[in-house]
Amino acid sequence: MFFASDNWAGAHPRIAERLHASAAGFSRAYGDGDLDQAVYARFSEIFEREVAVFFVATGTAANSLALAAYNRPGGISFGHREAHIIEDECGAPEYFTGGSRLHAIDGTLGRMDVRNLERAVARFAPEFVHAGRPMAISMTQSTEVGTVYGLDEIKAISAIARQYSLPLHMDGARFANALVSLDTTPAEMTWKRGVDIVSFGGTKNGCWCAEAIVLFDLDRAKEMAFLRKRSAQLFSKSRFISAQFDAYFDGGLWLDTAHHANAMATRLAAAISGSSVARLAWQPQANEVFAVIRTEVANAALAAGAAFYDWHAPAGFDGQLGEDETLYRFVTSFATSPEEVDRFGELLRR
Amino acid sequence: MFFASDNWAGAHPRIAERLHASAAGFSRAYGDGDLDQAVYARFSEIFEREVAVFFVATGTAANSLALAAYNRPGGISFGHREAHIIEDECGAPEYFTGGSRLHAIDGTLGRMDVRNLERAVARFAPEFVHAGRPMAISMTQSTEVGTVYGLDEIKAISAIARQYSLPLHMDGARFANALVSLDTTPAEMTWKRGVDIVSFGGTKNGCWCAEAIVLFDLDRAKEMAFLRKRSAQLFSKSRFISAQFDAYFDGGLWLDTAHHANAMATRLAAAISGSSVARLAWQPQANEVFAVIRTEVANAALAAGAAFYDWHAPAGFDGQLGEDETLYRFVTSFATSPEEVDRFGELLRR
Amino acid sequence: MFFASDNWAGAHPRIAERLHASAAGFSRAYGDGDLDQAVYARFSEIFEREVAVFFVATGTAANSLALAAYNRPGGISFGHREAHIIEDECGAPEYFTGGSRLHAIDGTLGRMDVRNLERAVARFAPEFVHAGRPMAISMTQSTEVGTVYGLDEIKAISAIARQYSLPLHMDGARFANALVSLDTTPAEMTWKRGVDIVSFGGTKNGCWCAEAIVLFDLDRAKEMAFLRKRSAQLFSKSRFISAQFDAYFDGGLWLDTAHHANAMATRLAAAISGSSVARLAWQPQANEVFAVIRTEVANAALAAGAAFYDWHAPAGFDGQLGEDETLYRFVTSFATSPEEVDRFGELLRR
Amino acid sequence: MFFASDNWAGAHPRIAERLHASAAGFSRAYGDGDLDQAVYARFSEIFEREVAVFFVATGTAANSLALAAYNRPGGISFGHREAHIIEDECGAPEYFTGGSRLHAIDGTLGRMDVRNLERAVARFAPEFVHAGRPMAISMTQSTEVGTVYGLDEIKAISAIARQYSLPLHMDGARFANALVSLDTTPAEMTWKRGVDIVSFGGTKNGCWCAEAIVLFDLDRAKEMAFLRKRSAQLFSKSRFISAQFDAYFDGGLWLDTAHHANAMATRLAAAISGSSVARLAWQPQANEVFAVIRTEVANAALAAGAAFYDWHAPAGFDGQLGEDETLYRFVTSFATSPEEVDRFGELLRR
Repeated sequence: MFFASDNWAGAHPRIAERLHASAAGFSRAYGDGDLDQAVYARFSEIFEREVAVFFVATGTAANSLALAAYNRPGGISFGHREAHIIEDECGAPEYFTGGSRLHAIDGTLGRMDVRNLERAVARFAPEFVHAGRPMAISMTQSTEVGTVYGLDEIKAISAIARQYSLPLHMDGARFANALVSLDTTPAEMTWKRGVDIVSFGGTKNGCWCAEAIVLFDLDRAKEMAFLRKRSAQLFSKSRFISAQFDAYFDGGLWLDTAHHANAMATRLAAAISGSSVARLAWQPQANEVFAVIRTEVANAALAAGAAFYDWHAPAGFDGQLGEDETLYRFVTSFATSPEEVDRFGELLRR
Repeated sequence: MFFASDNWAGAHPRIAERLHASAAGFSRAYGDGDLDQAVYARFSEIFEREVAVFFVATGTAANSLALAAYNRPGGISFGHREAHIIEDECGAPEYFTGGSRLHAIDGTLGRMDVRNLERAVARFAPEFVHAGRPMAISMTQSTEVGTVYGLDEIKAISAIARQYSLPLHMDGARFANALVSLDTTPAEMTWKRGVDIVSFGGTKNGCWCAEAIVLFDLDRAKEMAFLRKRSAQLFSKSRFISAQFDAYFDGGLWLDTAHHANAMATRLAAAISGSSVARLAWQPQANEVFAVIRTEVANAALAAGAAFYDWHAPAGFDGQLGEDETLYRFVTSFATSPEEVDRFGELLRR
Repeated sequence: MFFASDNWAGAHPRIAERLHASAAGFSRAYGDGDLDQAVYARFSEIFEREVAVFFVATGTAANSLALAAYNRPGGISFGHREAHIIEDECGAPEYFTGGSRLHAIDGTLGRMDVRNLERAVARFAPEFVHAGRPMAISMTQSTEVGTVYGLDEIKAISAIARQYSLPLHMDGARFANALVSLDTTPAEMTWKRGVDIVSFGGTKNGCWCAEAIVLFDLDRAKEMAFLRKRSAQLFSKSRFISAQFDAYFDGGLWLDTAHHANAMATRLAAAISGSSVARLAWQPQANEVFAVIRTEVANAALAAGAAFYDWHAPAGFDGQLGEDETLYRFVTSFATSPEEVDRFGELLRR
Repeated sequence: MFFASDNWAGAHPRIAERLHASAAGFSRAYGDGDLDQAVYARFSEIFEREVAVFFVATGTAANSLALAAYNRPGGISFGHREAHIIEDECGAPEYFTGGSRLHAIDGTLGRMDVRNLERAVARFAPEFVHAGRPMAISMTQSTEVGTVYGLDEIKAISAIARQYSLPLHMDGARFANALVSLDTTPAEMTWKRGVDIVSFGGTKNGCWCAEAIVLFDLDRAKEMAFLRKRSAQLFSKSRFISAQFDAYFDGGLWLDTAHHANAMATRLAAAISGSSVARLAWQPQANEVFAVIRTEVANAALAAGAAFYDWHAPAGFDGQLGEDETLYRFVTSFATSPEEVDRFGELLRR
């Protein structure tokens, strides 16, 4: 019953196996090996156009370097108030850009409200140096609260980005979970909707450590190579990332693991909905479930070995918390078993 | 015949195996898991005192964060002119410290000359803001050109560090190779000789990706936790590093792999010494061999599938290069086989 | 009728005169001259304790360096949502600190609400690296909307600073205007109420360019010297600042100019209150007046040569803007004449 | 006998007078006033083409922002080993660029040797991220040791800049002294010889504080406006700089003051040459004189009230220092009188 986070899981057997199988032999370092090259090509296939791919160590690095690729003095990036870049990265985006600013946009359940976004961007008069100036827009897909931007919403946000000549970044730490939730393709969810750069996360979806920056604007690739190296994110034995991604993509494993994680979230949501001591805070769309649970019941579940965190109520949560209730977050992953979910469901039914 | 670098190898079978075996199950993320804790404790045992350990993605990250831990406005760090931090990190140390400076110290064959070092440090008058001020001393052990500082040399350098109240950093990307070369202990080679912080590298010596900052001053650990997170170097599934280090240390594997790599260097050096078309540029002390070879012979070896790089002559190389000769670097590793070395030796004899 | 800003004025005659009189002769550079030393001593007298004084070029520099003096990785500084450091410095505080963050605190009419402040600071759990950590609190006195924190309010804010071991910075771009408004002393308004560092502004109150950082914690002075030089804020012919401050303090000129500016604001407020086409948005406490005026009347005044800006409504402004009304800001200074004010009053009466 | 530095002088009477005369009245702030605009136009006239002008507080700011205008990740700027940016700015150029590096080029008497420069630049292979990459070339005119690059030398350096697509920066803290020494025009000494950006100093040549960045590439002007504001270098009462430059340029005052300073250096050099206890270290070409003097004689002069500094011998100084001799630097300025020089000459003759 490990629902604390999808990064509490280890690696998917097929990924662990492939990594093991890749340990022997010699290969060029720093991302220039044959397997590295093959995996880059795989990314281009998946995105249905040539892309530039940069492996990095963490999602925070991917996000921070993505913004750094568009860095400018006095720059201000816009993201949802509860975005990972704002809430959970210890100021890394600001640090990587030498002091650019993150501007929080409000919106319901993890999604930026498009009108709020536009108002915020429009407020900066061109060439008025005192206030700084817009630099980028960043959206998380799926969001930090388990919701997913629809394709039209992505397009609406990118329309604002275009209008103000800003790049649109997608924090895809849970890219695959959103993808299968929308039942769409990587191309449709990104560049065909105006996304310019993606933090493509594999770690939460079955890898040990496999994060990549995917750049659609190839002209920026050379710059990114220096940005990455300078921030100490260039792996020497890069193939240990490639091997993971190689297995990740093989036979559509990544979609399967995401499907599984989302399905487990749905199963968990059903268990919660059917409980008299708990209710869904909102409808999950990917692999995170937020529920209001009687605090003593939740404590008992925790005592019984379940792992999950209480959470602050985000904007757009309109439920009332009773005095004896708490809001909790549950995250499922490739490694979550139906049995675990059912066991937790039983705890709720007791 | 892969002598290009020790990072062209993959992972040692026992390390690859352990990682594979650790893939299942759930564990706390961000370095707080049971295996993480166990490995931290192992570091303390190895160093014979309590140390603070921080896993990071790359040696460049370890070095840059080590210097950042002692950052100060106008700060200047001193290292050998050919140190990795100066030559091969794309300015990462400067970037991580928001613009501190690296000051190159000359010295024979990769080792800072102690008198040069002292002169350079002494040149900065206290409180003379125009010139900046000393901040740290960094030494690489084993050095970038395959030599090793003796224990007395480390002590002499740390004496200068103490005299000027500066921390002493050891870039131990090839820590184990130096350790077995000196036949000493981690404690003797570091804090007992005045070293304050170590970049402890496992990657070049048989891991996929296992780099750690080892801090002897525990008071700085809290700060380092923020420094690391802010620079996007905090792994979520941290146990994938711990599992590697766990196997690395088990049964002294790390010393065995270093012994092997050094022995292969010695074997290669012997082959070169015995050749009429090649000679040692200087005596190797760890796992890097530098040789002057007839250029056409080297080219033939490269054509025959050998991998190694030509190199610029470092200070202290007093050999003359004939017109038809070039200086080359060869790096051996846990994965280098005697057969490979001998095969290369044959190429030289032909 | 120049009410656009107090920085549209030039220099007070006595200050201009003193500067002129100081042009001849030679003096040590970089702040070490006799006049520099004398002015530092004057600051200590004025603050009734030994202080460390650092001249800088702009108020933005003073603010940014003041925060930089307390910089820490992952650091977050708290200030009012409309603070100059947040709204008008192009990200300089973030830049000077290599990426620390500014956290906006809401509060009525330019003053941070103490409970909001405490909630915001308390939200950061110690050692939770993901969220970053508090670093400093900054308050503007007088505020950006012409109000003034009372002495008790300063104390209440510094109590929170003490509780969380944070430094308290006062942005005193209009320090003198607040001082005379409260009819108190520099000591009472600062360190006796728990303020640790002050941006002491002379420019808006009659100097050409005279800004100083005043540090009460002398132990940080050495560090500040390097911070200042590194940010290119150390003047060579420093006495051109000293000469201005010398005249500024002589005979209490600085209090007189502030009294005058505040009195002109009061006079202007009276004219507005007495008008049928305008009303005060809120009561001015220093040298800035905010008024709601019939837009066409204001436009006529602008056309007639008056200079002032329309302004966005700050939190706490509870007036309703009619469709034909706009909110405007008026700033008075040492150079504002009663005749100007009266002339503007007449425009409102027409 | 104040020869310590040209920044020990105050302001030239005509400049002090003009500043005094500009104190009254109101003017738009932040560089948008009428006088500001007029002075910008004056710069364009002087440089015989449209230029973008940015006033800043210090020469260090001008240099650091000039390099920041061409900043790039992993960037390396090349300047003479004894350049002010390397020796005397506390790391400001590195800080302003978030950690770019300065690479010292050797050369005789303050001038970069062109072959050394080319070798240094050429050493960086394109796209080899480990080593970083060239970003800018910076030259000081007149140099830190009182010499002047000839027009052909400037052209030779800019040819290398062009070859490697690098901008050429001129640190003109003593621009006028070089200009009159070469008897040429600002255009000939800068953009007609391939210079892209100039730190144009007025402070050392008779102003209080008047430094400007002059950009020939107008496309970069918008960016510079943000760079300057973000680094807290945008003056509010900007006209106090404009007034100084206005007087500085009027009637060619700036050329007269530079002529005078250079003439005083020549006079001083003659006095030294004619002495039996002193000799010129090398021939002065601007307003700095370096001399080898019998130490006891120099000490007596210092005791008699003369002010000057001893200096380290730069590369290219081929004189031998006797045991009882020291190398000293003397700087003359607009404020140096022939009588002072003669008085010092007498001290040497005694």
